[in-house]
Amino acid sequence: MTIDGILNIIEDYAPLKLSYDFQNMIDGYDNSGIIARVDGEIKGVLFTLDLTFASVEKAIENGCNLIVTHHPSIYAPIKSVEGALLKAIQSKIGVISMHLNLDCAKYGIDYYLSSGLGATEQKILFDLGNGCGYGRVFDFSGTLLDVKEKYQSVFESKNVMIFGNPESKINKIASFCGSGLDVKEIEMASEVDLFISSDIKHHVILHALEKGKCVMNVSHYSSEVYGYKKFFEEIKGKLNGLNCVFYENADML
Amino acid sequence: MTIDGILNIIEDYAPLKLSYDFQNMIDGYDNSGIIARVDGEIKGVLFTLDLTFASVEKAIENGCNLIVTHHPSIYAPIKSVEGALLKAIQSKIGVISMHLNLDCAKYGIDYYLSSGLGATEQKILFDLGNGCGYGRVFDFSGTLLDVKEKYQSVFESKNVMIFGNPESKINKIASFCGSGLDVKEIEMASEVDLFISSDIKHHVILHALEKGKCVMNVSHYSSEVYGYKKFFEEIKGKLNGLNCVFYENADML
Amino acid sequence: MTIDGILNIIEDYAPLKLSYDFQNMIDGYDNSGIIARVDGEIKGVLFTLDLTFASVEKAIENGCNLIVTHHPSIYAPIKSVEGALLKAIQSKIGVISMHLNLDCAKYGIDYYLSSGLGATEQKILFDLGNGCGYGRVFDFSGTLLDVKEKYQSVFESKNVMIFGNPESKINKIASFCGSGLDVKEIEMASEVDLFISSDIKHHVILHALEKGKCVMNVSHYSSEVYGYKKFFEEIKGKLNGLNCVFYENADML
Amino acid sequence: MTIDGILNIIEDYAPLKLSYDFQNMIDGYDNSGIIARVDGEIKGVLFTLDLTFASVEKAIENGCNLIVTHHPSIYAPIKSVEGALLKAIQSKIGVISMHLNLDCAKYGIDYYLSSGLGATEQKILFDLGNGCGYGRVFDFSGTLLDVKEKYQSVFESKNVMIFGNPESKINKIASFCGSGLDVKEIEMASEVDLFISSDIKHHVILHALEKGKCVMNVSHYSSEVYGYKKFFEEIKGKLNGLNCVFYENADML
Amino acid sequence: MTIDGILNIIEDYAPLKLSYDFQNMIDGYDNSGIIARVDGEIKGVLFTLDLTFASVEKAIENGCNLIVTHHPSIYAPIKSVEGALLKAIQSKIGVISMHLNLDCAKYGIDYYLSSGLGATEQKILFDLGNGCGYGRVFDFSGTLLDVKEKYQSVFESKNVMIFGNPESKINKIASFCGSGLDVKEIEMASEVDLFISSDIKHHVILHALEKGKCVMNVSHYSSEVYGYKKFFEEIKGKLNGLNCVFYENADML
Amino acid sequence: MTIDGILNIIEDYAPLKLSYDFQNMIDGYDNSGIIARVDGEIKGVLFTLDLTFASVEKAIENGCNLIVTHHPSIYAPIKSVEGALLKAIQSKIGVISMHLNLDCAKYGIDYYLSSGLGATEQKILFDLGNGCGYGRVFDFSGTLLDVKEKYQSVFESKNVMIFGNPESKINKIASFCGSGLDVKEIEMASEVDLFISSDIKHHVILHALEKGKCVMNVSHYSSEVYGYKKFFEEIKGKLNGLNCVFYENADML
Repeated sequence: MTIDGILNIIEDYAPLKLSYDFQNMIDGYDNSGIIARVDGEIKGVLFTLDLTFASVEKAIENGCNLIVTHHPSIYAPIKSVEGALLKAIQSKIGVISMHLNLDCAKYGIDYYLSSGLGATEQKILFDLGNGCGYGRVFDFSGTLLDVKEKYQSVFESKNVMIFGNPESKINKIASFCGSGLDVKEIEMASEVDLFISSDIKHHVILHALEKGKCVMNVSHYSSEVYGYKKFFEEIKGKLNGLNCVFYENADML
Repeated sequence: MTIDGILNIIEDYAPLKLSYDFQNMIDGYDNSGIIARVDGEIKGVLFTLDLTFASVEKAIENGCNLIVTHHPSIYAPIKSVEGALLKAIQSKIGVISMHLNLDCAKYGIDYYLSSGLGATEQKILFDLGNGCGYGRVFDFSGTLLDVKEKYQSVFESKNVMIFGNPESKINKIASFCGSGLDVKEIEMASEVDLFISSDIKHHVILHALEKGKCVMNVSHYSSEVYGYKKFFEEIKGKLNGLNCVFYENADML
Repeated sequence: MTIDGILNIIEDYAPLKLSYDFQNMIDGYDNSGIIARVDGEIKGVLFTLDLTFASVEKAIENGCNLIVTHHPSIYAPIKSVEGALLKAIQSKIGVISMHLNLDCAKYGIDYYLSSGLGATEQKILFDLGNGCGYGRVFDFSGTLLDVKEKYQSVFESKNVMIFGNPESKINKIASFCGSGLDVKEIEMASEVDLFISSDIKHHVILHALEKGKCVMNVSHYSSEVYGYKKFFEEIKGKLNGLNCVFYENADML
Repeated sequence: MTIDGILNIIEDYAPLKLSYDFQNMIDGYDNSGIIARVDGEIKGVLFTLDLTFASVEKAIENGCNLIVTHHPSIYAPIKSVEGALLKAIQSKIGVISMHLNLDCAKYGIDYYLSSGLGATEQKILFDLGNGCGYGRVFDFSGTLLDVKEKYQSVFESKNVMIFGNPESKINKIASFCGSGLDVKEIEMASEVDLFISSDIKHHVILHALEKGKCVMNVSHYSSEVYGYKKFFEEIKGKLNGLNCVFYENADML
Repeated sequence: MTIDGILNIIEDYAPLKLSYDFQNMIDGYDNSGIIARVDGEIKGVLFTLDLTFASVEKAIENGCNLIVTHHPSIYAPIKSVEGALLKAIQSKIGVISMHLNLDCAKYGIDYYLSSGLGATEQKILFDLGNGCGYGRVFDFSGTLLDVKEKYQSVFESKNVMIFGNPESKINKIASFCGSGLDVKEIEMASEVDLFISSDIKHHVILHALEKGKCVMNVSHYSSEVYGYKKFFEEIKGKLNGLNCVFYENADML
Repeated sequence: MTIDGILNIIEDYAPLKLSYDFQNMIDGYDNSGIIARVDGEIKGVLFTLDLTFASVEKAIENGCNLIVTHHPSIYAPIKSVEGALLKAIQSKIGVISMHLNLDCAKYGIDYYLSSGLGATEQKILFDLGNGCGYGRVFDFSGTLLDVKEKYQSVFESKNVMIFGNPESKINKIASFCGSGLDVKEIEMASEVDLFISSDIKHHVILHALEKGKCVMNVSHYSSEVYGYKKFFEEIKGKLNGLNCVFYENADML
């Protein structure tokens, strides 16, 4: 199978169109798809949230000549090729990046953040149709502290901040994988008791607390690697025994 | 004493010029000074990191007709007067905001973040002269976990994230109060073992770890309220018995 | 009745949508609506073309806790609250501003400029439908001097400039309340003998005279306060005996 | 004498450098100098504030093959040659435009607005050195009505608006030829009782009145043609008997 | 016949709408139509690709009071009237400019570039409907050298550059009159062996050669004057014996 | 020797500072320096004007793991790594790009364009000091045709266009390597008989001819590869026997 064959399977799962649709909806920017092509047969695929030196080394050790990242391995356009991307290309490893299409896919990163917290039904805030979109609202039964403990256990993360009284009763949660929570989202989900996301800015936390809401700020990595592993397993199942490896960086959890 | 008299005392401590100098240095934006004037005698002053409803209520309860905030109570220019600012003005309370001048003052917010962690000597990364500036580098002796525990105890914060091996040996720390850590700062302080700041973005944490550094992401509020309380005590001492009140929001720590 | 109740009555008369429609049509800017909210029962409403210290004082004297202005009391967004707006809020007075929606309303400011000059039928140049819009063309019978005298008597203004031979015969007039006359409008209304507006620029007057037209430049205030008083009476009639006061500044006529 | 020879004499009186200096000072725009060249001997020069059809016709009647205007005969850059400029060029008439250099010249348009009102000593607000600049502050003794009457008689203009009590005592005046009065200028000249200029916007008049000042809004044409005639006489005297004609448009006064 | 009458005949041949349509399609800029009007009867028309002094002189010699250029005689808007345009207007000669409408006309400049090379059927790349548009693809039978020789003989041009092996077999050509060839066009016409245009940039030539294509860079003038002469003959035939002159500058071929 | 060692030698010859200085002077853009790094010992260096597939293949054949290009191998920043650059990096070949620093170097590309035409003394138009800069003016003795023939013989190029009478006498030439000739340059060098450059636009040629000048438009590649070969020989001499190869693409001459 070639890089294009694998891209087809991946984009079947997380169509590139979702990235464009979401960029249009939020006036955003993304860079998904093939970042560096590799010719010939793909011998193995490594999946990693980010393209790092350690992930490239693990790909080499495992005989993988393709890396699939969640975050774009080139985000802002570049004027020279450097770092882990240079190393990957020199090692004749191709690179595909997902991002907003995978965040928004029906069973994408954002979906798994809510389902990992026990959601069985989710309302989508930025709804792209067919179960795709970004921002999930769902029911919960317990305290803020309960949510924190559930998160730490399911998402295996030590790094969780909570703002608000730990004993607050939480009936409804809105979650946003990555760093997608801003004042606008708080206004959109006014029926919610708790907002969960990563890299949340001070004034956004303050705004939620002024509205009587609680906030849980989790590490960006932990909020996404959980769903990315699900994606990995799904794609692996479709690659007919092709060597598939997952790279996880426990330091980032 | 009038609002102008108090502003003079405050700007003696944290000259407005520091804000302009720092904005020029980093091509930044700020809005410090008198945000809403109040006529006549100041009867009491409430100090709070942010202008919130709760802080305005506490000012009223305590007979304060002036609030001094750290963060600008108007940041982006506004097209209508709303929220806590409206309430303050309606309550005939004046509002002064500090911000970059207090971050950068000789004994300002950024200084106290490092000294709270035990620094006795600090190198300033963005040096504005006379001991003023932003970004402090200082020595430490212990592990990453030791830093975390010290922070939690001194800054009374439950919300601390650490990235990197908790047992890593930390000899040198760079700290940045508020949300001032980006890739550029990591490059500027290459001799450092640990970077401390708030609201740190995922790719910045990743960049530091790729360089073999540790990162400690603390809550924005805790990184600043500690130094703001020192500032409060200092100014209180200069106001000759004028009623001075400090408002702290434990939920934000 | 609350501020929202009064806003509803006012926007029934001059729907906010007119402002947005007109902004789109001319690629313009506006800031209408509630500029500073006030809680509880409205005890009295003062109407004034502009928010000035004198108008706030008159509101206080008359027990009014709401001021309705024609011109936006915040136009360009602000970084601190100052002047008459600060005083109004400190006096627990709410502020609502009209502007383009009232200019363009069916019986709005622009309508009354033409009907005050005797128009019985008006063609609308920037037509927003349902009798709403900006720029009126209508018939007249008399000389330029006749128009000036009629204006001075009806609009009670001493400040009128005329350009062109005072004895010119005027059969058709185009009028634009406020400062809305530019070269484009002169081209749009080529069948007109006389253009009336305020704050008209030199090159616009020159352009009209080159085309053989006359121009009458009236004071901005007089061109609008006449219609604003009609609006005041209309709204007063709907407020069931609520204390309604009109503030006029004769110095601006 | 050629067009360049005449330009030299004119720019001796009003150096082009003044336009550039003033543009820099106020971040402005201008287009002075030769707008359309004419070859050979200049047989006669017509001076007019603006390039109009009537002024071109008068030049032809009087055998002038050069027109000197105060306002730029091309201001915003053009995509086709039209109107009076086309007619001038077709008639083999060259065109020179003055503007900011003549406004600001030592004995320029702005100087004569103040001296026409009786000023013997003038402070310059935007001072370009050597007696040149824009905005004059000078003493007066009388009421607002006195100023109006003096203006109407000296500047021969029927079109004068006054804002403020006609009986106000005026000791100090700030005058700005053309349309140069804005809020900033009012702040700069706080010791002044009366501001005089043309095309003054509503909010600027309002601002002045809030500060307790009076405002006199005169026609743009009258505020400048008076000084332009002085300039004409001065230049005429230097052209050794060359046929020099002045065109005035009484309808614009 | 007046200038408007002639414009009608010309725009019948090359409707102005084509320029607007093409500008929209490529997000481009143009300035077609009457650049300088002339009153009264047109006594003769000179056609020239560009408005130059020599072309104006030839118009005068031949008693023409109208010049029709292909390229806009004002392109970027101007702040003074100079050069050949000034001379034309002073000589009471009107100026009409064609450009994108004539490039794209059914029997316009771009059409004749391909038909001059022997094309009998042309596919249009930027298709504006009704046989109009820009960029022609057509069949050829011969070598690159054959194309060059045919061009030199038909278009009477000494100035032709070829890139690629002169003996390459050319079956399909894409041609673009003027300077319209860029990387995008090469991608659009991937079945082509040879790209022909003018003012082609180095990286565009390189891109074509990397794709295995040949490139022929001809002088801009020769690529357009051939079709412009056809246009001249066509219009001349419709002007009922009006004096029509063609100006050609052999130095530019 | 490492890539940094070679960069040092190259930048000794053509200091990077020249690129920045020239960008500042003309408000330009460039991207010089290491575009893709390679670790370890450099075994051979290939020099080529542009990074193309053929040049990478030749580097591989010749055991070179470094390519030095004149033109930036990334110009506009990129969002994915493609084409010849991808192939080079996959082949573990490093890439250095020169450009404006080499154009402007004392013995750089621009210098050799003039000296190749026989110049012994050159005046520099954009003078960066120390014999560096861009745009050379020098003496010649002969006709336009002589210049063309000399160019074709020395620069081995078949692709030369001349505009103007071939028999014109040429005493002074201004030459600009690459595509650096615009209207401004023609004005700067008014004493010149012939302008030489590449990719010259139609209106620039026309402007020169209107001024009575001749123009020679040569292929971009030929105007630069001649000097680039001199640079290659110079650097080769300093690399102590390291394998140095030159790649030339005859199709581009």
